[in-house]
Amino acid sequence: MQPLPGFRDFLPEDCAFRNYIFDSWRETARRYGFVEWDGPVLEPTDLYRRKSGPEIVAQLFNFTDKGEREVSLRPEMTPTLARVVAAHEREFKKPLKWFSIPQCFRYEKQQRGRLREHFQINCDIIGDDSLGADVETIALCIDLLRAFGLSEKDFVVRISDRRFWIDLLQQEKVPEERWAEMLQAIDKSEREPREKTAEKLGSLSKPIFAVLDGGGKSEKLEQLADGLRARRLDAFMKIDLGIVRGLAYYTGIVFEAFDRAGKFRALAGGGRYDNLIAQLSDNTVSLPAVGFAMGDVVLGELIAATPAAREQAASANARNRNIDVYLVVAKEERRQDALAQLQTLRDQGYRVDFAITPAKVGKQFQTAEQLGARAAVLFGDEWPQVTIKTLATGKQVSIPHSDLISHLAGLTNKQT
Amino acid sequence: MQPLPGFRDFLPEDCAFRNYIFDSWRETARRYGFVEWDGPVLEPTDLYRRKSGPEIVAQLFNFTDKGEREVSLRPEMTPTLARVVAAHEREFKKPLKWFSIPQCFRYEKQQRGRLREHFQINCDIIGDDSLGADVETIALCIDLLRAFGLSEKDFVVRISDRRFWIDLLQQEKVPEERWAEMLQAIDKSEREPREKTAEKLGSLSKPIFAVLDGGGKSEKLEQLADGLRARRLDAFMKIDLGIVRGLAYYTGIVFEAFDRAGKFRALAGGGRYDNLIAQLSDNTVSLPAVGFAMGDVVLGELIAATPAAREQAASANARNRNIDVYLVVAKEERRQDALAQLQTLRDQGYRVDFAITPAKVGKQFQTAEQLGARAAVLFGDEWPQVTIKTLATGKQVSIPHSDLISHLAGLTNKQT
Repeated sequence: MQPLPGFRDFLPEDCAFRNYIFDSWRETARRYGFVEWDGPVLEPTDLYRRKSGPEIVAQLFNFTDKGEREVSLRPEMTPTLARVVAAHEREFKKPLKWFSIPQCFRYEKQQRGRLREHFQINCDIIGDDSLGADVETIALCIDLLRAFGLSEKDFVVRISDRRFWIDLLQQEKVPEERWAEMLQAIDKSEREPREKTAEKLGSLSKPIFAVLDGGGKSEKLEQLADGLRARRLDAFMKIDLGIVRGLAYYTGIVFEAFDRAGKFRALAGGGRYDNLIAQLSDNTVSLPAVGFAMGDVVLGELIAATPAAREQAASANARNRNIDVYLVVAKEERRQDALAQLQTLRDQGYRVDFAITPAKVGKQFQTAEQLGARAAVLFGDEWPQVTIKTLATGKQVSIPHSDLISHLAGLTNKQT
Repeated sequence: MQPLPGFRDFLPEDCAFRNYIFDSWRETARRYGFVEWDGPVLEPTDLYRRKSGPEIVAQLFNFTDKGEREVSLRPEMTPTLARVVAAHEREFKKPLKWFSIPQCFRYEKQQRGRLREHFQINCDIIGDDSLGADVETIALCIDLLRAFGLSEKDFVVRISDRRFWIDLLQQEKVPEERWAEMLQAIDKSEREPREKTAEKLGSLSKPIFAVLDGGGKSEKLEQLADGLRARRLDAFMKIDLGIVRGLAYYTGIVFEAFDRAGKFRALAGGGRYDNLIAQLSDNTVSLPAVGFAMGDVVLGELIAATPAAREQAASANARNRNIDVYLVVAKEERRQDALAQLQTLRDQGYRVDFAITPAKVGKQFQTAEQLGARAAVLFGDEWPQVTIKTLATGKQVSIPHSDLISHLAGLTNKQT
């Protein structure tokens, strides 16, 4: 009676934490004027075959359905985005600023921070090829992390330009069919002994290592840094040409967010993909695009490892789960009266709970505290008076039951 | 470039409507003291084989994964709930009041209101076998619909008791292996000619039709009605022994919500399932349970067909999507200043957008209106003054840019 390997059960505490992540993501993306969309969790496998590098196809969670269709649980959101945008772009003014919070899947060996499913937020600006769109996108990526109480001491966004490398490969007259291989070697150079990378790069080792050692200058990246500086976000970024990213479809700026301590996998990654929509729509629609994804698993690990962020999450979770009022039925003759008040309070928007089955008064108060209630209302002998107890202070006051709503309004802020 | 048959793309407007449904569901469930949980979208097929009637297994969206596991996209949430509760129940005080908003799947022919995927809210009370738990559950079902501005004129919850029928079958000495068949015949009787049902029921036709024609009396259902009356929710319910429900695991109260006009499929359905957790845990854990599910598709159809509910949804969607402030860059020299303010406003929680690429001032104001902004702030010749325009009234005021935040605070309520 276990979940499948690589899949998670979300008990209430886990789910509250996940909701906290989703809510913060949503609120932040909306502050940037992004609107939410979504697509199917299952897509034709062909959608991924047509656009992705070989790595992602091998890891697909794919199968043949009962109608003999080859289908895949989505490994990422960008192909669906390209499909939906190509089909509907005429209905929308450009640029589109769209975000989504899909669950994504891959069939691969489990590792720390890498399950067979995870949730991610995807944010994309479509129909604007300017550097301003790149800046807006990276700024959002930064603010999505800041929303959790993470600071420039906790994470950094490393920004590179794939175009810079393509220009270099063209200059060096490397044939196009070898670009992917070279870009992969550069991408991996940070995590491999230099000799191994040199072997892969061959005669290109010298110019490429010169760049990786800090000898590369990119005008575009300097402008990008200026744009983030105008927003006072430059402390969160670093130009780093060693970032290339695995996916084949990026055409310009690429970036990845990491924890400063280097303890975890990437928090987020993305870049510009100006050709993908054309490619997936057989050139019926051509729109430039820039976007990124940020997953819930590594982010969750960083929050848990960062005291300020952990504390912020804990108080949000409590706010999310605590009830407002607990009704204590001290005399069973008063149960009907309590139930009438229960409905009135809930209709007013209060979170209210009570003992469905008769229980001792002390036990009911104990439950009230466990559920995080701010006030308990006791229905007993004094009826038509009721006693309101503020649980944090223990202060009690007896009032006519008809005054309950107005009294509670002063005592508890509704959660909702 | 289409989604798979039976799967939906959610363009921003569709997604806003879906979020409105989810948000209302969440808020209402929390008012009832329910906490959210979730499970995997993919489960071992065995989990469903072990508990469900034959109908659901034939409709499963199941396949064999790359590791030769037989797996299914979840058709419903209750088996996962039983699995998770059986594994973790010791960690929680009873009763559990849990809800979840899963996406569920089935592989069957598409019909109106019935796709291959849909979202549903599941609400369950576990560990309380009293009628009070049944009442609390049905009251929540009613309030989940009321939350959308639907009234007793729009929907009704029809409540029955499967135990009543089982008692009758036992009285009539029907062997247990034929119960499922009889219950199915009763369930379908409303939608079939009476002769056809009579044929299935055989010698039981007389006593069963007597009940269906109003001759049945259930003490338990009368008590249930009293419980809903105490909450002033009795106008939303009707005792109706013709409801049986297809799933094999119900053991007591069963209920279904329908639109009053009878135009749509069921809005929600559920009941008591006291043996399922024991059955799925090989009797290691035994807990009584009652719960229901409500789907997003039929509910969405009813909202769209009900003027008051439609209007409430539209204004919620607008609140959800509209931005607060649009920054108009009238002079490109002022772009950097606008970007600095952009960040300040967003940091304060405002939803702010602007023209990433230079555009004419008139066009920028037009975009501001399209995005639903309450105010536009113009950065131009008067710098270090800026002009704030309230878009609803057209009123303009020129202020020092350093006073922007305090001025906006009076003009727009932050959405967030």
